[in-house]
Amino acid sequence: MRQLDEYMHDHPVTPRTRDEKDAVVNRLKRIEGQVRGIQKMVEEDRYCVDILVQISAINAALKKVGFSVAERHTKHCVSDAVQTGKGHEAIDELMEVLKQFSK
Amino acid sequence: MRQLDEYMHDHPVTPRTRDEKDAVVNRLKRIEGQVRGIQKMVEEDRYCVDILVQISAINAALKKVGFSVAERHTKHCVSDAVQTGKGHEAIDELMEVLKQFSK
Amino acid sequence: MRQLDEYMHDHPVTPRTRDEKDAVVNRLKRIEGQVRGIQKMVEEDRYCVDILVQISAINAALKKVGFSVAERHTKHCVSDAVQTGKGHEAIDELMEVLKQFSK
Amino acid sequence: MRQLDEYMHDHPVTPRTRDEKDAVVNRLKRIEGQVRGIQKMVEEDRYCVDILVQISAINAALKKVGFSVAERHTKHCVSDAVQTGKGHEAIDELMEVLKQFSK
Repeated sequence: MRQLDEYMHDHPVTPRTRDEKDAVVNRLKRIEGQVRGIQKMVEEDRYCVDILVQISAINAALKKVGFSVAERHTKHCVSDAVQTGKGHEAIDELMEVLKQFSK
Repeated sequence: MRQLDEYMHDHPVTPRTRDEKDAVVNRLKRIEGQVRGIQKMVEEDRYCVDILVQISAINAALKKVGFSVAERHTKHCVSDAVQTGKGHEAIDELMEVLKQFSK
Repeated sequence: MRQLDEYMHDHPVTPRTRDEKDAVVNRLKRIEGQVRGIQKMVEEDRYCVDILVQISAINAALKKVGFSVAERHTKHCVSDAVQTGKGHEAIDELMEVLKQFSK
Repeated sequence: MRQLDEYMHDHPVTPRTRDEKDAVVNRLKRIEGQVRGIQKMVEEDRYCVDILVQISAINAALKKVGFSVAERHTKHCVSDAVQTGKGHEAIDELMEVLKQFSK
């Protein structure tokens, strides 16, 4: 993995546009706010099940961000790797991280 | 579900101790910091796979918090409900939220 | 865990009725058939994505069976344990297996 | 999705070798046996938690098969699509099925 990682870092990847960055960061800011919201719920001794529902919602939101990052990664970095004959390494790496992700 | 919810809210549940609150809130603060960390990674155009690894780590941490909340809920609220003949409703509610959680 | 396990095995639990057994076994038979169906799809060189959709469907069906087993377990074995002062051990065991389950 | 699906079906994909088929089918046969094993456990009124542990094991085994199918799909079908300018459609389809999979 390290090897590909170095390969990837050595080769310029399509950098995210301002709009792309904003879209991801805004979603993460919303998630950050939700995490703060749960802290408040705990402090106020709110009903456990309501807290669990909120945690599930954050998990779902994080997975959504993750998949949008994975999609962009596959459309840019992995596709570039495929076209320069480095596809297998890039795909092994992608699958590895998606496995972790689906836990 | 509403019905049980009302039942639960009407009956005093064992409130969380200061230590219990601190333990959960501290874990959530750490998660909040991790979410902010990903925002920075996106801004700095860091490698997508590194970002995905971080998102997986947050998901795992959130699940851990969720299970500790669910465990306490079961040991207190659900157990109380069992002992006062309201067990089935409380267990249905618990299973419902854990299903959502395991997605 | 062993300790509780022995406790559980030593104490008579409400045995499943014929109907309860049939309901679970029938769902498992359907799942078994789906697993055989995928073997056929692989043999016939069917499109990978169609195979993946089928695998997802089986996973969802298995989770559903699992949650129905967990629900019954909580309504019977765990509730009995709560009422005889062995609740915490039974709940720890339940949470442990649900954690594995939500991976 | 249909559109790509048709595209994929119209274009010859690298068919699985006998060895590749055997590897997947053998894993699925083992899973089929495990599902039958659970039916027996239910019939014999075995302890619920032991049944749940088995169901978790099958879920994990199925995910493993799924990821190996997804990996092969990405290394062959998706990579071919990338090289013939159909990458985005193939990647959208892959992500869609992996999302379902990670539930």
